Amino acid sequence: MAGILRKEAFDIPEGVIYLDGNSLGPLPRGVGARMQDMLSDEWGEMLIRGWNGAGWMDQPSRVGDSVARIIGAAPGSVVMGDTLSIKVFQALAAGIKLVPERRVILSDTGNFPSDLYMAEGLVGLLGQGYALRTVAPEEVLGATDDSVAVVMLTEVDYRTGRKHDMNAVTRAAQDAGAVMVWDLAHSAGALPVDLAGSGCEMAIGCTYKYLNGGPGAPAFIYVRPDLADRVEPALSGWLGHRKPFDFDLGYTPGQGIERMRVGTPPVLQLTALEVAMALWDDVDMQELRTASVALQEQFIEEIERDVPQLTLASPRDAAVRGSQVSFRFAEGYAAMQAVIDRGVIGDFRAPDIMRFGFTPMYLDSGDVTAAVKIIAEVMNDDLWDQDKYKVRSKVT
Amino acid sequence: MAGILRKEAFDIPEGVIYLDGNSLGPLPRGVGARMQDMLSDEWGEMLIRGWNGAGWMDQPSRVGDSVARIIGAAPGSVVMGDTLSIKVFQALAAGIKLVPERRVILSDTGNFPSDLYMAEGLVGLLGQGYALRTVAPEEVLGATDDSVAVVMLTEVDYRTGRKHDMNAVTRAAQDAGAVMVWDLAHSAGALPVDLAGSGCEMAIGCTYKYLNGGPGAPAFIYVRPDLADRVEPALSGWLGHRKPFDFDLGYTPGQGIERMRVGTPPVLQLTALEVAMALWDDVDMQELRTASVALQEQFIEEIERDVPQLTLASPRDAAVRGSQVSFRFAEGYAAMQAVIDRGVIGDFRAPDIMRFGFTPMYLDSGDVTAAVKIIAEVMNDDLWDQDKYKVRSKVT
Repeated sequence: MAGILRKEAFDIPEGVIYLDGNSLGPLPRGVGARMQDMLSDEWGEMLIRGWNGAGWMDQPSRVGDSVARIIGAAPGSVVMGDTLSIKVFQALAAGIKLVPERRVILSDTGNFPSDLYMAEGLVGLLGQGYALRTVAPEEVLGATDDSVAVVMLTEVDYRTGRKHDMNAVTRAAQDAGAVMVWDLAHSAGALPVDLAGSGCEMAIGCTYKYLNGGPGAPAFIYVRPDLADRVEPALSGWLGHRKPFDFDLGYTPGQGIERMRVGTPPVLQLTALEVAMALWDDVDMQELRTASVALQEQFIEEIERDVPQLTLASPRDAAVRGSQVSFRFAEGYAAMQAVIDRGVIGDFRAPDIMRFGFTPMYLDSGDVTAAVKIIAEVMNDDLWDQDKYKVRSKVT
Repeated sequence: MAGILRKEAFDIPEGVIYLDGNSLGPLPRGVGARMQDMLSDEWGEMLIRGWNGAGWMDQPSRVGDSVARIIGAAPGSVVMGDTLSIKVFQALAAGIKLVPERRVILSDTGNFPSDLYMAEGLVGLLGQGYALRTVAPEEVLGATDDSVAVVMLTEVDYRTGRKHDMNAVTRAAQDAGAVMVWDLAHSAGALPVDLAGSGCEMAIGCTYKYLNGGPGAPAFIYVRPDLADRVEPALSGWLGHRKPFDFDLGYTPGQGIERMRVGTPPVLQLTALEVAMALWDDVDMQELRTASVALQEQFIEEIERDVPQLTLASPRDAAVRGSQVSFRFAEGYAAMQAVIDRGVIGDFRAPDIMRFGFTPMYLDSGDVTAAVKIIAEVMNDDLWDQDKYKVRSKVT
């Protein structure tokens, strides 16, 4: 396939411009047929024999390898499973054991709340002076001192798209003797990531955003290969055991990244994800980044020209921005509902962020122009200022 | 629907007698069509709006209620998510916080190894003298003393089908001041469970066995309603937060059982499971138990009559047996392969257990007779004694 754009690979509804692939990627066309085959020929026909016969048991590692390529990790260093929140817990629990004399997990206020909640749950469970320290994103480098066991950050801020300097922060963490854990939720499939090059100890991420794995698609975890046989899995489930089917009473960790598996893998979700990952086989991540930045720059320019009542919340410099653009507007929730009603799907993040994701696999420059035209109409004619848009729903 | 038998609701291959529904239930016929609709009309068409519009966000509680009915729990006391291994960890971590002055988790050697591994991981993470104590199943009552914080047992032994007395063990645990956690992996959908009546504090289980939710279907967790607002979630993910979409930086647990949700739910798996659970709407669990016991008794009688070289490994008394029958045979692995090759699907558990599950929704007395005939042929003609059956594969 030449180039990055492959609209025909996705089932996007007529009349929709989808700027929310940073929250839930659209349906890859091949998923439906593959899922039917999987249900009838594998679950239906092979029944329990599917675990070996249909390769279900190896799926977490096989799909992990396809994710590894996207994030600059070696084959065999990534495995799929659980949710991102569980993977945060798993990475943090392994990280603190690598630096047993320290008690602090350092993160920032731009991190996705669930990452902070999971850290809070872990330190609460541990007691003994363990604590989560949270600073502003720009203060992370200065806050990384010799009390810190683990630095855990999301590379790209979920609200603003602000991007950390992965290499610089990793170096600072390691210079201070801490373990570095990166959350790649808004990075994997969004921009080039060079995990191996960064030297970070662990990374985690999800696959339902830019990787288009579907609602509730499983998470991934990466452990630096030289550490993979050393980390102690606190979530020591049977499929991370060296020999799960020996049914030993005691736990012996599996080899390498396999030990980060926990329970029975979600085969239906992995089957959908595997179809989605095949779309990445020939994607050059630098080329994708160039296309993503071009769409974002065009969007910022056209919005600032046509809709001046919106205030850019994302960094203006594309070099420190992920693959999304956010604008502030006091009535952003109502405004986003009105925009969505007209077929431009972005989302809203409290208190006032209108968020738009850019995904060059299924968006081109014409889509950006068409989206801005609709947003301008809604904003300039105050179409959002109606009761039906102003009721704040539970999920936004 | 009259009676329990509903073979037409399942897609079981021609020529197969499926005695492994205790490991992975067969495909309910409605799953394929529902999955296609979900993919095209929900993920495809609604995209991110499916979280509210298609009810994905409420699915873990909605499906939880349908599981609750099967296990004698009140609506609103069960929620779905994660894997059973993660749910073990979650229940144990909540349990030990309820009895902060004690340090012992008590289990038995008949427990499924992953339950023990997860407990091992938790006590290893905690340090401070926390320990897992494991005794023989028949010694549990005597071992429940005032050092024990949590008693965690699987009601039905995965190898032999031996069943604990849920009420008696719960009472003993609580009399000793411990918290009782039941794993219902081989109980839910297999026999009547009266969780509320037992008074146990927590329970967990999986849905891919007797509940037919499909490979990797999510687990469930129950918390006794009077405790649900008191338990401290160590796996404090955003969807267990009181207001996940406020994106607060600090965690506030959700109301009741909702706090046991962790990350983004696996919508595809839950969609399949929801179809499977609909088959239980009119099932009377006492009637199911009567049918299950009748099939098991017939199987034991016919095997002992026709295949005397197999030795019963399950309790002979149906009152203390789940919904499976196991026999010991030194070359059980090879024998089971040969039996499977002839269309009778059971499974093998090391070192010598040939395991057969009985599921009266899609098995009748004619199936039992036909299965025994094939097993007798294989065993009496030593058909298992060929090289092709004697190589032990990775997954058994």
